[in-house]
Amino acid sequence: MVAGEFMKYLQQRILQDGKVFPGEVLKVSSFLNHQLDDCLLDQVGKHISDLFANEKITKILTIEASGIAIACYTARYIHTPVLFAKKEKTSNVSDTVYSAQVVSYTHKKTSTIVVDKEFLTKDDRVLVVDDFLARGEALRGLISLIDQAGATLVGCAIAIEKGFQGGGDQLRAQGVRVESLAIIDSMTDDSITFRE
Amino acid sequence: MVAGEFMKYLQQRILQDGKVFPGEVLKVSSFLNHQLDDCLLDQVGKHISDLFANEKITKILTIEASGIAIACYTARYIHTPVLFAKKEKTSNVSDTVYSAQVVSYTHKKTSTIVVDKEFLTKDDRVLVVDDFLARGEALRGLISLIDQAGATLVGCAIAIEKGFQGGGDQLRAQGVRVESLAIIDSMTDDSITFRE
Repeated sequence: MVAGEFMKYLQQRILQDGKVFPGEVLKVSSFLNHQLDDCLLDQVGKHISDLFANEKITKILTIEASGIAIACYTARYIHTPVLFAKKEKTSNVSDTVYSAQVVSYTHKKTSTIVVDKEFLTKDDRVLVVDDFLARGEALRGLISLIDQAGATLVGCAIAIEKGFQGGGDQLRAQGVRVESLAIIDSMTDDSITFRE
Repeated sequence: MVAGEFMKYLQQRILQDGKVFPGEVLKVSSFLNHQLDDCLLDQVGKHISDLFANEKITKILTIEASGIAIACYTARYIHTPVLFAKKEKTSNVSDTVYSAQVVSYTHKKTSTIVVDKEFLTKDDRVLVVDDFLARGEALRGLISLIDQAGATLVGCAIAIEKGFQGGGDQLRAQGVRVESLAIIDSMTDDSITFRE
């Protein structure tokens, strides 16, 4: 599929299979973050890799758990290692890791995310990927890990951005390249409107 | 790589990059469960798919977080959906999910793992995959979810089995097909011996 065609297809899948829950929660468990659709994720990986072609990416960084799938499918095209940040129970972390605090509004809790220092270095050119972008908390945490390592952030690639929650546009205003394959501009119990 | 060649290569990577920690813990964070080696995981996925060719698999089941990568790389060859069981904080689960208790000896805690009932049905022929097999707790939990759904367990595919912890052989003795790409028969701080 060419890019425009795939983006329309992804929107259709969101409309068809997505379920809206109270608190502006969109569940796409049937294809993106519980059950994973191999064909759809292959296209997600392909289109992310096309968007960042020629960027000499050396590492794909994501966060457990549902970001891992998108990172792996993207790595199948970019052929770099994937690094996934782990969520720690405690904020007591060792000095062998970079760490950041991430607030999840959906789950109403704060996590400490960590990556081993040995896997993220100043020579890395890093693409951040994730399944969802809402207020941007997870991305800001991942970008902080990249900054701590002195690595270069190439940009962020997201499957579904909830545009109306503002995190993506805030990062864009700060000069971060954020590419989302579908951007939802408004969402109610019975309608979802996409940004064109 | 043909199967025998890849298995030798995987053993070499474990010897070269693996780190043994107290409590019979083997860390392979550089390629399997923190940083992920795209080429190696592609071969893992290919060899798992070869081992279970002709099994008419309809779903790959794994558990978050590090199982997801292996499941996705296997799905690239088998072309079925992946379903990953989620770990819940609470044992209070809704009646829309199948659930099981899993003890982790490494992390010294019990988790409740769940999958939505709608994604696992009696018509499914399920391949279970995971990165590690030690005492077999995670596999038994996943197999319980399959049993609850009335689905068919085709077998289990594992990247690294700690054979000396017995979980794999126990499942084999119960008639479960368990295929591990590397089986460690003994492990000390400065030596790792593989089963031939």
